[in-house]
Amino acid sequence: MTVYVYDFTQGNKDQKDLLGGKGANLAEMTKLGLPVPPGFTVTTEACTEYLVAGDEPPVLRVQVTQALRQLEDKIGRRLGDRHDPLLVSVRSGAKFSMPGMMETVLNIGLNDASVKGLAEISDDPRFAWDSYRRLLQMFGKTVLGIDGEVFSDALDAAKAESGVTSDVDLPVEELQKLVEEFKTIIRKESGSEFPQHPREQLDLAIRAVFESWNTERARLYRRRERIPHDLGTAVNVCTMVFGNLGSTSGTGVAFTRDPASGKTGAYGDYLPNAQGEDVVAGIRNTLSLDDLKGLDPASHAELIMAMRQLETHYRDLCDIEFTIERGKLWMLQTRVGKRTAAAAFRIATQLIDEQLITLDEALLRVSGAQLAQLMFPHFDSSAKHALLTRGMGASPGAAVGKAVFDSATAEEQAEQGERVILIRRETNPDDLGGMIASNGILTARGGKTSHAAVVARGMGKTCVCGAEELDVDLAAREVRVGDVTIREGDLVSIDGSTGEVFIGEKAVVPSPVATYLESGFEVAIANSDEETTALVRAVDRLLSHADLTRRLSVRANADTADDAIRARRLGAEGIGLTRTEHMFLGERRVLIERVVLAETDEQRLHALEELLPMQRSEFIELLEAMDSLPTTIRLLDPPLHEFLPDLTELSVRVAVAEVTGGADEQDKVLLAAVQRLHESNPMLGLRGVRLGLLVPGLFALQVRAIAEAVVARINAGGSPLAEIMVPLVGSVRELNLVRDEAEKIITDVGIAAGISLEIPIGTMIELPRAALTARRIAESADFFSFGTNDLTQTTWGFSRDDVEGTFFASYLEKGVFTVSPFETLDAIGVGRLVRIAAEEGRSTTPDLKLGVCGEHGGDPESIHFFHDVGIDYVSCSPFRVPVARLEAGRAGLGATGSDTR
Amino acid sequence: MTVYVYDFTQGNKDQKDLLGGKGANLAEMTKLGLPVPPGFTVTTEACTEYLVAGDEPPVLRVQVTQALRQLEDKIGRRLGDRHDPLLVSVRSGAKFSMPGMMETVLNIGLNDASVKGLAEISDDPRFAWDSYRRLLQMFGKTVLGIDGEVFSDALDAAKAESGVTSDVDLPVEELQKLVEEFKTIIRKESGSEFPQHPREQLDLAIRAVFESWNTERARLYRRRERIPHDLGTAVNVCTMVFGNLGSTSGTGVAFTRDPASGKTGAYGDYLPNAQGEDVVAGIRNTLSLDDLKGLDPASHAELIMAMRQLETHYRDLCDIEFTIERGKLWMLQTRVGKRTAAAAFRIATQLIDEQLITLDEALLRVSGAQLAQLMFPHFDSSAKHALLTRGMGASPGAAVGKAVFDSATAEEQAEQGERVILIRRETNPDDLGGMIASNGILTARGGKTSHAAVVARGMGKTCVCGAEELDVDLAAREVRVGDVTIREGDLVSIDGSTGEVFIGEKAVVPSPVATYLESGFEVAIANSDEETTALVRAVDRLLSHADLTRRLSVRANADTADDAIRARRLGAEGIGLTRTEHMFLGERRVLIERVVLAETDEQRLHALEELLPMQRSEFIELLEAMDSLPTTIRLLDPPLHEFLPDLTELSVRVAVAEVTGGADEQDKVLLAAVQRLHESNPMLGLRGVRLGLLVPGLFALQVRAIAEAVVARINAGGSPLAEIMVPLVGSVRELNLVRDEAEKIITDVGIAAGISLEIPIGTMIELPRAALTARRIAESADFFSFGTNDLTQTTWGFSRDDVEGTFFASYLEKGVFTVSPFETLDAIGVGRLVRIAAEEGRSTTPDLKLGVCGEHGGDPESIHFFHDVGIDYVSCSPFRVPVARLEAGRAGLGATGSDTR
Repeated sequence: MTVYVYDFTQGNKDQKDLLGGKGANLAEMTKLGLPVPPGFTVTTEACTEYLVAGDEPPVLRVQVTQALRQLEDKIGRRLGDRHDPLLVSVRSGAKFSMPGMMETVLNIGLNDASVKGLAEISDDPRFAWDSYRRLLQMFGKTVLGIDGEVFSDALDAAKAESGVTSDVDLPVEELQKLVEEFKTIIRKESGSEFPQHPREQLDLAIRAVFESWNTERARLYRRRERIPHDLGTAVNVCTMVFGNLGSTSGTGVAFTRDPASGKTGAYGDYLPNAQGEDVVAGIRNTLSLDDLKGLDPASHAELIMAMRQLETHYRDLCDIEFTIERGKLWMLQTRVGKRTAAAAFRIATQLIDEQLITLDEALLRVSGAQLAQLMFPHFDSSAKHALLTRGMGASPGAAVGKAVFDSATAEEQAEQGERVILIRRETNPDDLGGMIASNGILTARGGKTSHAAVVARGMGKTCVCGAEELDVDLAAREVRVGDVTIREGDLVSIDGSTGEVFIGEKAVVPSPVATYLESGFEVAIANSDEETTALVRAVDRLLSHADLTRRLSVRANADTADDAIRARRLGAEGIGLTRTEHMFLGERRVLIERVVLAETDEQRLHALEELLPMQRSEFIELLEAMDSLPTTIRLLDPPLHEFLPDLTELSVRVAVAEVTGGADEQDKVLLAAVQRLHESNPMLGLRGVRLGLLVPGLFALQVRAIAEAVVARINAGGSPLAEIMVPLVGSVRELNLVRDEAEKIITDVGIAAGISLEIPIGTMIELPRAALTARRIAESADFFSFGTNDLTQTTWGFSRDDVEGTFFASYLEKGVFTVSPFETLDAIGVGRLVRIAAEEGRSTTPDLKLGVCGEHGGDPESIHFFHDVGIDYVSCSPFRVPVARLEAGRAGLGATGSDTR
Repeated sequence: MTVYVYDFTQGNKDQKDLLGGKGANLAEMTKLGLPVPPGFTVTTEACTEYLVAGDEPPVLRVQVTQALRQLEDKIGRRLGDRHDPLLVSVRSGAKFSMPGMMETVLNIGLNDASVKGLAEISDDPRFAWDSYRRLLQMFGKTVLGIDGEVFSDALDAAKAESGVTSDVDLPVEELQKLVEEFKTIIRKESGSEFPQHPREQLDLAIRAVFESWNTERARLYRRRERIPHDLGTAVNVCTMVFGNLGSTSGTGVAFTRDPASGKTGAYGDYLPNAQGEDVVAGIRNTLSLDDLKGLDPASHAELIMAMRQLETHYRDLCDIEFTIERGKLWMLQTRVGKRTAAAAFRIATQLIDEQLITLDEALLRVSGAQLAQLMFPHFDSSAKHALLTRGMGASPGAAVGKAVFDSATAEEQAEQGERVILIRRETNPDDLGGMIASNGILTARGGKTSHAAVVARGMGKTCVCGAEELDVDLAAREVRVGDVTIREGDLVSIDGSTGEVFIGEKAVVPSPVATYLESGFEVAIANSDEETTALVRAVDRLLSHADLTRRLSVRANADTADDAIRARRLGAEGIGLTRTEHMFLGERRVLIERVVLAETDEQRLHALEELLPMQRSEFIELLEAMDSLPTTIRLLDPPLHEFLPDLTELSVRVAVAEVTGGADEQDKVLLAAVQRLHESNPMLGLRGVRLGLLVPGLFALQVRAIAEAVVARINAGGSPLAEIMVPLVGSVRELNLVRDEAEKIITDVGIAAGISLEIPIGTMIELPRAALTARRIAESADFFSFGTNDLTQTTWGFSRDDVEGTFFASYLEKGVFTVSPFETLDAIGVGRLVRIAAEEGRSTTPDLKLGVCGEHGGDPESIHFFHDVGIDYVSCSPFRVPVARLEAGRAGLGATGSDTR
């Protein structure tokens, strides 16, 4: 027979699946001999069976009866006894904490008879009737589903009538009248009487907790927190103890260390003569634990001992709820406490020093997400500024600057030493210069994976996007939100974590962790206070350990030598992706236009030849910055028309010019070319290797520039480790064709230089077909690099640019996604292709090098997946490199992806 | 030790892989006791080893020596003997016939000495010197790679000098001079002497044949015919026999039946006193076999007997090459003969009646491609008309009509009873009406899978596309090709098989097979000649048998009741795909615009409600036409903006109007909406189920219309079998959401009507992710239907609309594709996903119904793949239904995909 009910003396802390977090920890404390009020837990299994069947499992009632009898015998009172009633609380408690999401009913066992018994026994009629009032109110709202407002309105009316402002000042007669009124409300609203039978109260309350699992807000919370919907909640039935029995009673919460800073030493709040809900309501100011020591030294000492015992036992920061009933301490709850990112790092290292945990365990106690938080500067929260509007926090940090509305102005102003915030309706590749020059980026359109968001995250630059209230008027050089107008040059502050946009300058606090990561330990702790030094030391210690435990290498995606230098400082062990397309943008666009518009092969080759020295010198700088580390250079990827003007804009210009008589011949020629090259779906068009095979000389130019750069670096005494990567391959034949041509060029360049050049040639795996035919493609590839962004696009059949703004929000809300598949790798779809390609590629070439260069390379959960699949390295934006190092280290210790939550 | 050389007495016809087609059949004829000149075959293995290693396998020379000695002993002469030389021919012979692609050298063994011996022995010095001249010429060209023109120029000069016009009139002295001259040419051009040693001649010739496998033209031919490149060719070394030894000699080709019509009775050409190359050169008129009977009754009788024996043995039409040397018949080659589509059907059924083959075998002797050819009308080839230009034959048939340049005109003219040809730069969905109204479609742009081509093939309508010389001037209502101008109303004729475009009206011959398929046997044979009746009877017999042997069902893709009726006549067993988007085009676009532009849910619902009765009545008609057969209706698939005006056009209109002062307010509102809905990659955007989940009421409207149509049909006494199909599903959750809503509506409609409605709900599998997660999706689907067009697009990451015109041609040329993956399913990439989804879907639901509704459903090779994977039905355009029935029948007999070639 399934056991659905566990007495607190039966379970332990490892049974969270079955008993929920709260129940498991109550059992553990009981086992430790701490003063826990007796009680029992109804399992999560009972809940899920109830939800599936729509009714309790038949034996549940019997088991509750047995547990209740045992409890009554232990306490020596009967539930709801008319003379000396046992009262119980009923609280939900799921595996994962869902604060405020679930339901609680206190004082079960009170009725018209037992309230009088309680008044007599406690010698405090006011307390007894107030307890009954509370039961009616909670039961009515929680179990019977009556609008809580109805009760609180009646309570307010009673207070007004008595001329008091606080509940505790209500005289007992008023409370008795209120009890009658509440019973009337229940009768009227629910159509039946408040159940006087104590056992009926208990059964209904348990049932209500079960049902609270599937309320709208609970589902929403789980979705947001990525908690599975099928876990169910446990129900804890616990003997009531009362902190509101006069001045020798009270209730409080405590932490074994400071959960904000991580400082050692117990820390907590205490409220005399109060119940837990009063603390939450925040009516009276709380006292400190030191104050409690003065009031009740014995209870204080016992509490401190209990906390010490718990921390030693749990080997971690614990938080605690306790109540003192007439001088007797009761422990009501404990759990491993939530903490800030800074506290997480500090506490983990403290516990190593206290010899409670190992370095490995400490590393598992922190996460990449926490490290990322620590790397961003933030606004001084004490400063109050007018909130202008709110968008999406797309790339964290705090940035202040003068509003500018185009890339050129941003660059000009930055050169003059101004801090600027680039405000655009949305950004495109042409805004790159302006984005680099700006302190932060603010857009009116686009989601977390829009161009602005992705590029900003890549740069580690603060970005708020999709602030839809913004009416960006480029012509007028201003942006409006309702009546408020921000003009070019006005100061604004944006918070990339919260998405908030402020008018004026908010004070920014820099991140010492970022300073440490970029400039080293000594620089970071110079002139720092003790707290900061301790934090930096903790990060250093755990990150260094992660570097020892990880199997995955971490490289960076870097397009320029500056990026590469920064990435190297942040610990990158190479470059996994250099995009070469930026080398064709800006002023050089004119040259590429000539390549596109060339009417003969000769013209095209001539235009390409002019590009060669520029490419070569950029590659030389890059290889110098990454000397002796692998540097993967991707051949040109985007569609040609990205280098040409926008079709609609150009069409309008030509048409208007025709009408007004000023038609420009060159524009017309350009328009014809743009029309010819226009594609309905450029993402699915002529790009990557297709373009390379179609435009003679294009890839050859790039390969030659790479090979010559390698020669130049060797001649300068360097150790260049360039790797050539072919984009968008779908068939091994494409790769063969490029490879044949490239090898010939590399050999030629090598012969001319008198050097035997070895430049590995590999391919992106970014199309489903490439993954599905990896066995063949591996025959011709020295390495695979998974382009998980494109692979996600084609596997799901949606383009990042197009869908974020439309149906992604709705899909997250409807639960089709728990998280955007562009943020965390979709393991069962896209991930399956990665797994197939990894396994089958290696079946052809056992030592095939496997990397990942999509955005997912910097995502904690995805990193764990890549580790599991046997990937050799991940490559991410320089700023994410430390995060990836930390998570790769955790993965090396066997942490699973879901531990990154 | 590997055997590289087989005597003709050793092999047999089933060894084509090893001996090539010619060698295997020579061995077979030798085994049958037919008069084959003795010889031996060097295997394809020797060739591939030569090509890989760049040299002959070491033992090959030894084995050739042994075979040659055996041959010399048998004949009683020595190769190149100075008195009585044995001469041999060296001919290539691959597994698959590659006519004219490979090399031949005759008369090997002649040199300055043996030519004299031959002159003496043959008593015909002219013959001997002419043979030597021929050897030098062929050897120089083929083995030594000297330009053939040099020899033929010298030959022409010699004829001119002698004052003769024909080779045969050259006197022996001239031939002797020519021999010297040819030797000089060889010395000069190749840098060395013509090898006098006979064995050296032989070895070099064998090597030349090996190398001919990889010439440019051979590779090109194989690519076009989809013959693998790694097969290699065999080399046949055969004793020379001479048809040019006077009037009792001659050479000829013969067929055991007429390969054009399939008529019984031997059929052939004979040329006295000639060698094979003379027949090919076509210098003299050939005689018939009857003429041969008069000239040489004994040889004729022996030939007829041999042909009868061959046909009985091969159980099929054979073609034969033979030579008569001084009254003695020699069989030089035989093979199962190529034939026209009509002959294929007729011969297959004749052979059943002659009890040579079974019905099953007969079915394997014809193909869907042949049936398709027989279904199209064609131009009367005797009529001569001026060729205007040539495009791609995109949808076969012969169409004549007046040129029109837009859809509206096409419809107007057609209503007035005119036949029209719609000429467009390219077509788009708005041209649908015009395409239906036209006899044929001609476009200047786009390939075989452009919109025009795909839609035309779907309708079975003649189409020539990508005729790039056409300069379509819509404004001027004319099209120009160089100096020629076709004006609206001028007659043009287009051939959808050859891609030819003619000026004026060419006579069209209708297809009796199409008449049979559409209107039945009796109608087709009424007033037909005997030949036609026999053909129709053959098609009927084999197609009926295919219906018995196939496991695959065949459905049609049909959007209207008319399509459905036609499909049913052509044998469709249901509808696999009804696209509902056409119901939102045309005049109703205004309504859908209101749906898109609706500012409130109410407005949208109102607009949708107006659409309901129209949808319902179309579904009623459809279900009536398909009564008692399954009818799969796909919910709305394309992106919303397809129903809106083009962004660029509208932007230009508004901008120009602004300048000229006539700005239209409504246009501006529309432009804002179009801008808002604009997507960079609509194929990867908001469409299919995404649209259905985002626009409240849209799918609900369609489901309601379907359910109500089913009710209406049931009430009218019908048996409607509607199935609802959800497009573009990537996750089971999407399907669940649609399913939940749909089931509710179906139940409601059923309750209102008092009928228990059972309408299966299934999903398209057209995204890689759907295939990869099929195990889960199957939990919520009553059926899967593979949308192989979209699946091909996403698996390869290219869009049909964008890539056909750009890199497809180049990819076919470079061998990345052997055929467009939109035509024949890419088995190892896209097909692997189909297989995964089929297997894993069935692992969840063993009786899950699986269908295919992409273009591939009508492609012979792909049908075999689908059969193998266990698909239940294919669905294709109505016109392809008979083709699919035939191929499904062949697949049921175990024919493999490559047999469809």
